[in-house]
Amino acid sequence: MALTVQKFGGTSVADADRIRAVADHVARARRQGDEVVVVVSAMGKSTDDLLRLACDVSAVRPGRELDMLLTAGERISMALLCMALAELGVPAASFTGSQAGIITDTVHQNAKIIEVRGDRLRAALRRGHVPVVAGFQGVSVEHDVTTLGRGGSDTTAVALAASLGADRCEIYTDVSGVFSADPRIVPDARKIKRISFEEMLEIAATGGRVLALRSVEFARNHHVPLHVRSSFTWEPGTWVDEEDPTMEQPIVSAVTSDATATKLTLTKVPDQPGIAASLFRALADEHVNVDMIVQNTSHDGTTDISFTTGKVDTPTATRVVEALADKIGAGTLSIDESIAQVSVIGAGMRTNPGVTATMFESLAAAGINIEMISTSPIRISCMVAADGAEQAVRALHEAFDLGEARP
Amino acid sequence: MALTVQKFGGTSVADADRIRAVADHVARARRQGDEVVVVVSAMGKSTDDLLRLACDVSAVRPGRELDMLLTAGERISMALLCMALAELGVPAASFTGSQAGIITDTVHQNAKIIEVRGDRLRAALRRGHVPVVAGFQGVSVEHDVTTLGRGGSDTTAVALAASLGADRCEIYTDVSGVFSADPRIVPDARKIKRISFEEMLEIAATGGRVLALRSVEFARNHHVPLHVRSSFTWEPGTWVDEEDPTMEQPIVSAVTSDATATKLTLTKVPDQPGIAASLFRALADEHVNVDMIVQNTSHDGTTDISFTTGKVDTPTATRVVEALADKIGAGTLSIDESIAQVSVIGAGMRTNPGVTATMFESLAAAGINIEMISTSPIRISCMVAADGAEQAVRALHEAFDLGEARP
Repeated sequence: MALTVQKFGGTSVADADRIRAVADHVARARRQGDEVVVVVSAMGKSTDDLLRLACDVSAVRPGRELDMLLTAGERISMALLCMALAELGVPAASFTGSQAGIITDTVHQNAKIIEVRGDRLRAALRRGHVPVVAGFQGVSVEHDVTTLGRGGSDTTAVALAASLGADRCEIYTDVSGVFSADPRIVPDARKIKRISFEEMLEIAATGGRVLALRSVEFARNHHVPLHVRSSFTWEPGTWVDEEDPTMEQPIVSAVTSDATATKLTLTKVPDQPGIAASLFRALADEHVNVDMIVQNTSHDGTTDISFTTGKVDTPTATRVVEALADKIGAGTLSIDESIAQVSVIGAGMRTNPGVTATMFESLAAAGINIEMISTSPIRISCMVAADGAEQAVRALHEAFDLGEARP
Repeated sequence: MALTVQKFGGTSVADADRIRAVADHVARARRQGDEVVVVVSAMGKSTDDLLRLACDVSAVRPGRELDMLLTAGERISMALLCMALAELGVPAASFTGSQAGIITDTVHQNAKIIEVRGDRLRAALRRGHVPVVAGFQGVSVEHDVTTLGRGGSDTTAVALAASLGADRCEIYTDVSGVFSADPRIVPDARKIKRISFEEMLEIAATGGRVLALRSVEFARNHHVPLHVRSSFTWEPGTWVDEEDPTMEQPIVSAVTSDATATKLTLTKVPDQPGIAASLFRALADEHVNVDMIVQNTSHDGTTDISFTTGKVDTPTATRVVEALADKIGAGTLSIDESIAQVSVIGAGMRTNPGVTATMFESLAAAGINIEMISTSPIRISCMVAADGAEQAVRALHEAFDLGEARP
């Protein structure tokens, strides 16, 4: 008898009909002999609705109270799903994050799971019940309600799967799996049947939005096989699992793009030891996440330093850099918000040195200028003008022969 | 420094504006030097909305899951109120029923409070915070979420006031207090400044809907003075407190009416010892609440038995009586759903024997027939035809001189 954790996102439980469809699916898995633990998100856009209400009420919204507010959402969806299961004759019981033993730190809005005490869920399973657990939420070591931040329900599901020793964790969503590129940009993008945790991490980090980075990290660290699939078609989706050393890896698995960054360039920075360090220390002190950094060769004792940061961090980064520029005697700061990062990802890159050359050639052939480059052992990312990003994705998808027609 | 528990019902927190108005009022009480604990209901009709959603999803709705569902409502209102208080510079923290230590039995949908462990609330008060507590909800001795049933938020407020040793419990609602009659029926009904727990219990039990019976019982048993008042006008309302033996009591304080009952009459019941007992035992076994009972004098060895029960219990009562009628050889069952109970209530009745006579005379003068009668030391209730009930209330209100003009 296999134990499966099934996680259903907001679109999968958006209304009464969708909730009944999910109940049918859970009941089917049970009939096939599986033990099932369900994790649900809040219905559809209800979290956004609650946030809007909070903004209407007050300009001051303490994190503790936002967490209390937002956790109402899963409470509703999980209770409704249990009722739908009851109607099908499947005994089910809902559990809040606290009741499910999801113990977190005290960082409201972005709490980290410290421990999962799965006793109540194990007891429910022993009684033959389907535990339906609220995603995205936990209880802090100080007994306050917390939320896990973006992608939190995926993290809940993976953490429960790890804690309960589940055989797999199924992530149900509104797309049918992980694709070789965003199908809205590349119509012949191919659904990937199986991908390694490492590749999935790179995809999540560079703009693929199917799975949140944190949940993939958690799954990799705890060896929980993930199955990303659609709750609309119920067809088999994408397995995310350990790299299989017996198989030859595809050179490139996916092409991603991400337009959430801004490029900041500070000119005429004195080329002295410690100057660059002082810049990035000042940014770190203000919690600005810096992604790519490029420093040109020095001319006349000065250099230009460019770096990228998330658009949300741009105002803070601008303030920090401008304040420092005067102090260190640097030149002017220029800000480019019209950039996008295009990445190719593939475990086979490690043993195939030609990927970089192919990538640059195909971008050049498409007339796309590369502004910055960063790499990992299984990823190459190029910063390009935002208006060329989609064209770049299509060119790279074609160059690496990733389309449906591929054998 | 006085400690006040302030309870705000659904209409008092129905939207963002109302929530901000409540926050203003709480802040004002704090500025006046009071310590405040707030209890809130779910916003406006949100509980009804959740119930409708549950009906859309499933015909089977286990009590445990209904409780999980409905408790989402207060979670939203209390978090929003804390945000509104934060904007006013008043530190506040929300607490679920569980976090506030409201421990109940395991009867979902209608749980009884067993114990209030107010440690977290006391700690919050010591830190100078305003605890904002979810009304209507608790946690069972088996760690499941429970709800307290109708009027549950009032009960939460009174139970917290008793547990914390509060000086008073203010119940804010959409009417400005307890009136000598329903102002929609009697336009010159007078707001009562002060009334005893005993009278308030009779009012709540006979159709007055301002306070739920359970919360008044709880307040009486724990000596918690209640102040029922409006969150729209904020004017002083009605104090409900111990009877003041130094003051002469009004003979009649209020006239109420209630059309939620049905009258069932079983004819030709054999007039033998134990027959009536078997009837009411059978009803009790099916949890049918019986209110008034009238048995006529026996003729020819048989008698007619009439009793009233809530309209919700009528189908069950009908089934039970019809099943028994055959067995005991009784006649036919007739059901009258068009009845209403009209009551006059007053602590002074105990020492004023003329009230019954005045009541009957004034109903007779208004041409209203009395079908059944029941009394307590401070109440007289008459069952009349439903279409005469409002006229009966007006006649009695006038006969006992309860209008605004009364000195």
